[in-house]
Amino acid sequence: MSEIIEKRPATAIKDGVALATHYNVVRELPLTIILNDEELATLVCSPHELKTLAVGFLVSEGLLQNPDDLLEVSCREEQGVIWIRTSCPFQGDGFLKRNFTSCCGKGRPSLHFINDYNQIQPVASDVTFTAKQVIRYSALLDENSDVFKLTGGVHEAALAHGESLVVRYDDIGRHNALDRVLGYTFLNRIDTSDKAVVLSGRVASEMLTKAARIGVPLVVSRSAPTSLSIDLAEQLGITIAGFARGNSFNVYTHPERIV
Amino acid sequence: MSEIIEKRPATAIKDGVALATHYNVVRELPLTIILNDEELATLVCSPHELKTLAVGFLVSEGLLQNPDDLLEVSCREEQGVIWIRTSCPFQGDGFLKRNFTSCCGKGRPSLHFINDYNQIQPVASDVTFTAKQVIRYSALLDENSDVFKLTGGVHEAALAHGESLVVRYDDIGRHNALDRVLGYTFLNRIDTSDKAVVLSGRVASEMLTKAARIGVPLVVSRSAPTSLSIDLAEQLGITIAGFARGNSFNVYTHPERIV
Repeated sequence: MSEIIEKRPATAIKDGVALATHYNVVRELPLTIILNDEELATLVCSPHELKTLAVGFLVSEGLLQNPDDLLEVSCREEQGVIWIRTSCPFQGDGFLKRNFTSCCGKGRPSLHFINDYNQIQPVASDVTFTAKQVIRYSALLDENSDVFKLTGGVHEAALAHGESLVVRYDDIGRHNALDRVLGYTFLNRIDTSDKAVVLSGRVASEMLTKAARIGVPLVVSRSAPTSLSIDLAEQLGITIAGFARGNSFNVYTHPERIV
Repeated sequence: MSEIIEKRPATAIKDGVALATHYNVVRELPLTIILNDEELATLVCSPHELKTLAVGFLVSEGLLQNPDDLLEVSCREEQGVIWIRTSCPFQGDGFLKRNFTSCCGKGRPSLHFINDYNQIQPVASDVTFTAKQVIRYSALLDENSDVFKLTGGVHEAALAHGESLVVRYDDIGRHNALDRVLGYTFLNRIDTSDKAVVLSGRVASEMLTKAARIGVPLVVSRSAPTSLSIDLAEQLGITIAGFARGNSFNVYTHPERIV
């Protein structure tokens, strides 16, 4: 965990009394992705598992769709640079270079943007989940949130199946956390058609679009969806279970999938 | 508030019992900014006070520094487009076109990026604040968070002075919320050298950089700072008061400003 957190001096002030102490704070790394020798984007992220993150970012942006197209990844964390080589032609001008940031901090196209409309297919899966599973996924995400409990400074995203989480990630950015899940499923060629994405944060349209990229039929969040993500989920056949806390949650779209 | 929130049907599931009902959800609008006839960026935001937001975005990006340079703003909300004309030359290629998103959802340069290094000056203000003021600012932000209480779906940012908040904004994106504060101070030519920025969310480097853009000496947050924002605040002479909740908070940088 030491790569994500560091101790910093701080003055704690309580009821007017000051106390010099140290606190755990999350580390934040600017990471520049160079795709096929062209600078693509700079993410601001938690400094761990950068390959998974960068690959997930490409998947999220629709720049990588087939595992066989990924040829080489080389990272220099101390320089904040990762080089990726793919066999997909990349037109920098078409993509529009951007700098991307941390929390949620992405310049992400939503389904409003033409590229996504062309690439993202509605989820066809007729898999169902029980209410108990939804509650369990949210509880598991919460139980394992050690970095959040220490720092209050990260978001979490996980992939869930059956009674457990397949993988979970922390990141200072909620977009990054979910991109890591995308990277994991891509690198490990995971079938996601019977799995759920579980999020600590809100389901805005970009988060919904990412889940749609990997075709999961269910998005569980401890927090709220937006109107736009509800519209997109309706169109894309994705069930949104929001405010999943304790023994309750709200189903905003495709309730037929919760049995 | 009706422009920010709408009712949506949902199925509430509690202890295994399903109940058809309606919930307040936050609206999410993609807003494309056209600057001097060039498409600059698409923000995903809460659909209200779009002029303040778009102007604040330009200020945040260093594309607008003098109020006299703002010539014309024209908005068509139903189309999701805002046109801004300035007397500053804008080189689209230099800026790098990007799509920007909602929560925190910005592709923002931090001080790592050369443009900011050149533009942002350390805060020179020797204004001080009392611990009571810090606690009051955080409490005021919380007390007035009606949209958050209804939806759980927005972030908040405010400008504070003396014993009160000068202005406060909600937005589905925390970057947007703070950009609105920047837009307000810019449009109203507010002297910010004796004021504080107050945030509901975390202080990542981009948020710190925005506060530095308008030269506020104090950033109060109900949540955590990152290591990078602490480093930047140290260099830029900004005091960060984090985890400001109830009667306590932590001062991470320049504690001499809290008396």
